Amino acid sequence: MIEPVDLPRAYLLLNHGPTVLVTSAHGGARNVMAAAWAMPLDFSPPKMLVVVDKDTWTRELIEASGEFALCIPSRAQAHATLQVGSHSGRDEDKFQSSGLTTFAASKIGAPLIEGCLGWLECKVIPEPHNQQAYDLFIGEVVAAWAAPDVFSGNRWHFPADERRSVHYVAGGSFFATGEAFNVADPE
Amino acid sequence: MIEPVDLPRAYLLLNHGPTVLVTSAHGGARNVMAAAWAMPLDFSPPKMLVVVDKDTWTRELIEASGEFALCIPSRAQAHATLQVGSHSGRDEDKFQSSGLTTFAASKIGAPLIEGCLGWLECKVIPEPHNQQAYDLFIGEVVAAWAAPDVFSGNRWHFPADERRSVHYVAGGSFFATGEAFNVADPE
Repeated sequence: MIEPVDLPRAYLLLNHGPTVLVTSAHGGARNVMAAAWAMPLDFSPPKMLVVVDKDTWTRELIEASGEFALCIPSRAQAHATLQVGSHSGRDEDKFQSSGLTTFAASKIGAPLIEGCLGWLECKVIPEPHNQQAYDLFIGEVVAAWAAPDVFSGNRWHFPADERRSVHYVAGGSFFATGEAFNVADPE
Repeated sequence: MIEPVDLPRAYLLLNHGPTVLVTSAHGGARNVMAAAWAMPLDFSPPKMLVVVDKDTWTRELIEASGEFALCIPSRAQAHATLQVGSHSGRDEDKFQSSGLTTFAASKIGAPLIEGCLGWLECKVIPEPHNQQAYDLFIGEVVAAWAAPDVFSGNRWHFPADERRSVHYVAGGSFFATGEAFNVADPE
């Protein structure tokens, strides 16, 4: 089950820095890769940044279509996240090899990954210098969705360990998103 | 106590998406602010991205000096992180009001915050269009440091709750960096 997230609150899905799955599609081809380097860039209209290396197939599909989705995997999907982050879609159908299944996005052609915690449908804001010099893409979020068991009322409320977001480190090592806590501003 | 981090491994300090403290200095003035929107951009030479709003004093100091530091606060510093993220250094000395104390960086004029988990000394790679259109700064990391009780041998090993990194959400709400886990790539 998925529910829409108000666009000005879409940044909340990535504000805590989770690792994402980047999906892309063009001309009948589609792909998925993992990205630890993604974050919000602006609130409204919401924009996201993601770094996509030049030699990836995802890069080709994003540049051809001008679209991508950022899907926030759960800890239960960490194994698949590592797998699609370690292999190229040029060599294999990574949806098949990882077991990740998809459903249609609402406003873009790239598919969304089932079982994730949140989804951001993005259209590329063309910035050729950033793309060429830094592998850096800016996407405007045109639709945002969350799984209501973990995000509702504009806040995360992770229930069980397997439904927490994850933060990739290196070499197959992740952190789960940990304990929530509140701090009151003294004023 | 702080120990140097090899520059090609500096990305590891931010790969899991923690919230940072941004320090800056110019002409006898200095400031500190919080930023949830910071992440690695490249491995070697390491580069970092950070979003710094136009109306902040930090922005003025960074643009004047061409330097900034990213300091990774611990959970024990979450209250101070919220405070320096909610007030302007134009109105008060945020080091004094937050209780954050500093020590000198090695290669830049901006101070480093005592008690943090890691530190990245950065020199701005000027990109006027990104800075103007998106409030986005690219810094090349010229020195990196970590506290050896939490990071050594090129890996994080958080000991106690109060020495974990934090991930800001909104409204005074944070997540602590949670449980570490490993996933083996099937191949």
